[in-house]
Amino acid sequence: MDSKASARAAAVASHLSMKSASADVKDTSVLGLGNPMAAMAAERSKASFPIRELTYFLDGGKEVTAVKERMMTELERDPVFQNVDFYDLTKEQLRERTMTRISRLIHYITSEREELSHLRFSLVGLIDMGLLTRTAVHYALFFGSLRGSASPKQFSYWISQGAAEMKGMIGCFCMTELAHGSNVAGLETTATFDETTDEFIVHTPHHGATKWWIGGAAHTATHTVCFARLIVKGKDYGVKSFVVPLRDPRTYELKPGVSIGDIGKKMGRDGIDNGWVQFSYVRIPRQFMLMKHSKVDRHGNVTQPALEQLTYGALIVGRVSMVADSAQMSKRFVTIALRYAAVRRQFTSKKGEVETKLLDYALHQRRLLPLLAQTFAMQFASDQMSAMHRALMRKIDSTDPSDVKAMAPVIEELKEVFTTSAGLKAFTTWACAETIDQTRQACGGHGYSAYNGFGPAYNDWVVQCTWEGDNNILALSAGRGLIQRYLEIQKGGKAPVQTGYLNKITWLKSAQAGSRRIDSVAVLSEAWEAVSAAVVSKAGESFTALRKNGLSADEAFEETSQQRFLAARIHSRCFMVLKFFDRISSSSGPEIKPVLTDLAYLYALWSIENDAGLFLQAGFFTSEQIDEIRELCNFYCRKVRQQAVPITDAFNLSDFFINSAIGRYDGNVYENYFTQVKRQNPSKPQAPYFEKVIKPFVHRAAELEVDTEELDEDEA
Amino acid sequence: MDSKASARAAAVASHLSMKSASADVKDTSVLGLGNPMAAMAAERSKASFPIRELTYFLDGGKEVTAVKERMMTELERDPVFQNVDFYDLTKEQLRERTMTRISRLIHYITSEREELSHLRFSLVGLIDMGLLTRTAVHYALFFGSLRGSASPKQFSYWISQGAAEMKGMIGCFCMTELAHGSNVAGLETTATFDETTDEFIVHTPHHGATKWWIGGAAHTATHTVCFARLIVKGKDYGVKSFVVPLRDPRTYELKPGVSIGDIGKKMGRDGIDNGWVQFSYVRIPRQFMLMKHSKVDRHGNVTQPALEQLTYGALIVGRVSMVADSAQMSKRFVTIALRYAAVRRQFTSKKGEVETKLLDYALHQRRLLPLLAQTFAMQFASDQMSAMHRALMRKIDSTDPSDVKAMAPVIEELKEVFTTSAGLKAFTTWACAETIDQTRQACGGHGYSAYNGFGPAYNDWVVQCTWEGDNNILALSAGRGLIQRYLEIQKGGKAPVQTGYLNKITWLKSAQAGSRRIDSVAVLSEAWEAVSAAVVSKAGESFTALRKNGLSADEAFEETSQQRFLAARIHSRCFMVLKFFDRISSSSGPEIKPVLTDLAYLYALWSIENDAGLFLQAGFFTSEQIDEIRELCNFYCRKVRQQAVPITDAFNLSDFFINSAIGRYDGNVYENYFTQVKRQNPSKPQAPYFEKVIKPFVHRAAELEVDTEELDEDEA
Repeated sequence: MDSKASARAAAVASHLSMKSASADVKDTSVLGLGNPMAAMAAERSKASFPIRELTYFLDGGKEVTAVKERMMTELERDPVFQNVDFYDLTKEQLRERTMTRISRLIHYITSEREELSHLRFSLVGLIDMGLLTRTAVHYALFFGSLRGSASPKQFSYWISQGAAEMKGMIGCFCMTELAHGSNVAGLETTATFDETTDEFIVHTPHHGATKWWIGGAAHTATHTVCFARLIVKGKDYGVKSFVVPLRDPRTYELKPGVSIGDIGKKMGRDGIDNGWVQFSYVRIPRQFMLMKHSKVDRHGNVTQPALEQLTYGALIVGRVSMVADSAQMSKRFVTIALRYAAVRRQFTSKKGEVETKLLDYALHQRRLLPLLAQTFAMQFASDQMSAMHRALMRKIDSTDPSDVKAMAPVIEELKEVFTTSAGLKAFTTWACAETIDQTRQACGGHGYSAYNGFGPAYNDWVVQCTWEGDNNILALSAGRGLIQRYLEIQKGGKAPVQTGYLNKITWLKSAQAGSRRIDSVAVLSEAWEAVSAAVVSKAGESFTALRKNGLSADEAFEETSQQRFLAARIHSRCFMVLKFFDRISSSSGPEIKPVLTDLAYLYALWSIENDAGLFLQAGFFTSEQIDEIRELCNFYCRKVRQQAVPITDAFNLSDFFINSAIGRYDGNVYENYFTQVKRQNPSKPQAPYFEKVIKPFVHRAAELEVDTEELDEDEA
Repeated sequence: MDSKASARAAAVASHLSMKSASADVKDTSVLGLGNPMAAMAAERSKASFPIRELTYFLDGGKEVTAVKERMMTELERDPVFQNVDFYDLTKEQLRERTMTRISRLIHYITSEREELSHLRFSLVGLIDMGLLTRTAVHYALFFGSLRGSASPKQFSYWISQGAAEMKGMIGCFCMTELAHGSNVAGLETTATFDETTDEFIVHTPHHGATKWWIGGAAHTATHTVCFARLIVKGKDYGVKSFVVPLRDPRTYELKPGVSIGDIGKKMGRDGIDNGWVQFSYVRIPRQFMLMKHSKVDRHGNVTQPALEQLTYGALIVGRVSMVADSAQMSKRFVTIALRYAAVRRQFTSKKGEVETKLLDYALHQRRLLPLLAQTFAMQFASDQMSAMHRALMRKIDSTDPSDVKAMAPVIEELKEVFTTSAGLKAFTTWACAETIDQTRQACGGHGYSAYNGFGPAYNDWVVQCTWEGDNNILALSAGRGLIQRYLEIQKGGKAPVQTGYLNKITWLKSAQAGSRRIDSVAVLSEAWEAVSAAVVSKAGESFTALRKNGLSADEAFEETSQQRFLAARIHSRCFMVLKFFDRISSSSGPEIKPVLTDLAYLYALWSIENDAGLFLQAGFFTSEQIDEIRELCNFYCRKVRQQAVPITDAFNLSDFFINSAIGRYDGNVYENYFTQVKRQNPSKPQAPYFEKVIKPFVHRAAELEVDTEELDEDEA
């Protein structure tokens, strides 16, 4: 036994004796059950920091918290948003419920400032993800396209038709086709200019070009913004946007040439009426093409935009909000699992003692507390991402697009934001999916009950990893950006702040933790910078080597796919670690700083443990230090465990938003859960199919045995 | 640029030129769509091995394949098993459908030999996991308990009552309670002996002891095997099994004192009518206690069994079958995703060319082909596990349990099988869940449609990670076994075959790949043995250190939880790698050996890559070799890619069992999928809630504006 192991063992022994000294007041209730509400209260009494301060910090100030709480009250009290039966609704019921809720939300949407709407919708998403999407189909996709791509005159026209208020018209967004998703430039629906009538003819050339997954198309939409190839005088100008009327808004009869069907059952988000749409020579006025960027005049003269890149800007909004959603949704599920773990008991080492809380088991801490820390990392990364995005949008709005010189740095910044948001969208939506899945498993069998919320939320959530840029493709795109940045620096360029570590790559290559204390901001930040630099430069070198051997840039990028993916993953993780530390040092008050620092250390250490091989390869940590990091993870899990329930309380989600019987604030898990199960499943004397199926089966007669002898021919 | 990178680049360049030379015959069809059926046929034409031979090898012989195919035909042709509407059924419909199918399956169950039944049920599980479970509740749990725990006389009695044929009675299994799952010994339901009446009084003392999750209880069961604490003359003898009648088999009215409710909606497996059960002083004859092991006589004298361990044997069956299920279910989903990837096209580097198949992208290969290799690893591990289990059962049956000396080696073997099955159950059920999830994502948006099977299967599957031993707890238990084994060896003992590497631990500690070729059976096997030995010994040393510092064994095990978990994970992976190689060398024919070897290498290499840190820490590979292993993974992905479709064909699952529109054999994905969507969602002119919700919303009047001036009092 070496001296290190011996020291560790001594530390554990002293930790254990502390634990028994500070044990909860003995429960007087049933041994295996304990007294869950008392256990929960005991957890709260351990708070070492003012919970309310942490809430303000997370929300971005006391005033924001006040606004959020007002909105939460409004939603929670509204009968249309009651959610007690949510997990039992069929697809048909969900669709009707969702539409009913939209007709209620419209009041806020049309009367509230845009920032407030964002805040409200982040709360609505917690209640019902399908509702959020079905509303966003009109506002973010349809109306957002009008705002982003219509000329001012066109935009006014559609507003006069009711587009801003979903009045007299409801929009949807026909982008994806059955055979084309990620490759938008390859879409095959055509919009052919007919100069004789001054119209476009919108057409689906074959079944693979059927518009597919179109939210709102099956039941709701009267109009769509349709992506189609602009064809003028036989020339293909690529994909542009067109408004196409789908249904008569009075009767909802389909317009001539429009065929629509229901996509049917999905893994989740069944509240959205996704449909497919086929166009058969549908004629629309020329002016229904959205002409802010590209234009077609009466005579078929086509003007293409100077700065195509600017149109990408619109794609970033969705990604930014998905990073925020990831943090939001993770808060909900770590809260449920940690509350349950704080009162659920299982096994005891001493007979006759009340059993041990799940949260006091080392492995259970390991399963949940890094996810808690990660939730904070996601929130801070999201805040940073939103700030970058807002700053960029301000610059775009205030710069003349025809001023090439003034636009150059804006385009540079756009690229940076594009790459960063691609990586963060991918790795935070995955992290959130993982969080829902792992927290479910941490609740054992009860995690599998629909009434505790995990299954339905997982099913609703995971599409985030696929839509608005498949995570793998986004990661590859982020990796491509990192290689390009590396090559620029090799040529003497300078990296902007998000990839700033590449500016000190030579120094980082020989950086080591050495004898410094590992659990410190300096060492952990440097470790992440060093390993990101190593991974990015390795990918860059491979790319260069392939180019030198005659591969085209496209081929060389394709051959370095795995390395690009890895570079994007590690860079995004590095971003999250660094922003976590930045946020603490720049703005957290002295009372909450210690708990935030513990969480940040845990996040950085756990992330190193998961990619230990890369840190060893980079030579930043020795093998012994990797072992020490594993021990440090245990240590910070134990430390954060003490504050786990108060920390989740700081997320400030009421029981209505948690919507999980075992995740309620009071900790009265068994009563709450049993009550919910009984309310949703009132006793019936017999199964509905008792007479038809069960009874005839249980009381079936013996199978007829054929007496073959009787049938035998006399063999006389 | 170093010389290695340059060499790699040259290899890639030559690979690319080969690729273009052997490209598919140019498709003549639509560019983005290609001709999916032709593309699929082209994949099949590339088979370098006889597909049928691989099927026989996987099934365990030509004869087994013949039997399976007969059963597949029987199920596929039976109208009761038609599955085209499966993904649209509501919970209520699913429950009725499931029971209808059971009443059909009974014919086979009651007339078929047991091995054949196993084979049939592994196929039934592919069609409908809930159906498999609902049947198993009676046969594996209820009837299995009777067989395992009833005395011969009792067993005959229950057979005479119809237990073997579900006739006049249907059983369920009341183990889990609301507040107790994994800790079976802590269950709180009581069975108190009343000597005056010669009865047991079965009672639920408080709501936490309510029997929970009881499959079959809500609608179907007339009887249950109930786990309850045996209390005789005030003494608690621990948990035993009792048959308790729940309902009158004629009317299905609940027996006096029995309360039952429906558990309601779950994440998946809604075809099972899980219920909760409370007993209020329910009296049963003394003879309804199952008395094979423990006994209570007329006067309340209790006899406890000599060898408690033997009762654990029953737990292993479930685990063994879940390892097999993991392989089976993975086959289904890798088949779907690989078939889709072989025909789905996306992006092209050359304008005007047909787009590239997903399967030709390096990252897509990386996402799917290791999972294909893992599926084989699971199957071979499962075969090995089943063989070990059968051998053990034969020994138990042929050894006199009172012969302590003869039983000693049997108990040793039981321990070994117990530990191995615990680890394999945990890590294969997780691997299968991961496979369903990753293959879904690899199908992009279409993976999210219910009709392609992923979502429903994931929801049905994941409970396997929780029930019959929560995966985390099983992994910890396997890790405990490994530490104990290590300590025995330190004391001079000898490890049995499954942990045989521990016998050469000193040698393995200094083993290195050195200059040997990495992609070879010798080096890869040794690598896995070395790293398993390193991880197990590190855990063992930590445990010893903690003990020396005064911790009890329980405390020291608890403090080494993370290490135990890691040891179990790595040991199980090592087991799978070694068994894969064993299986190839011992029994594969020369025609299929090359493709199996590629798969085995890919599995071993990919697994090393995922845990690179441990191999570096163990000093088996250098940092440069880890880079080489990443390149080798790419290489074997490219190699296996050529055979991907033929390999999945060898799994021999017909379209009926695949039950996925985009996963059908012919590759005609878009037609098949569109047809299925239309069949399940016939066109309707308007939404069912059009008049009630949509119309009033779209045509709502403006909100009334109150003219406040009109209300102003005259201020005269």
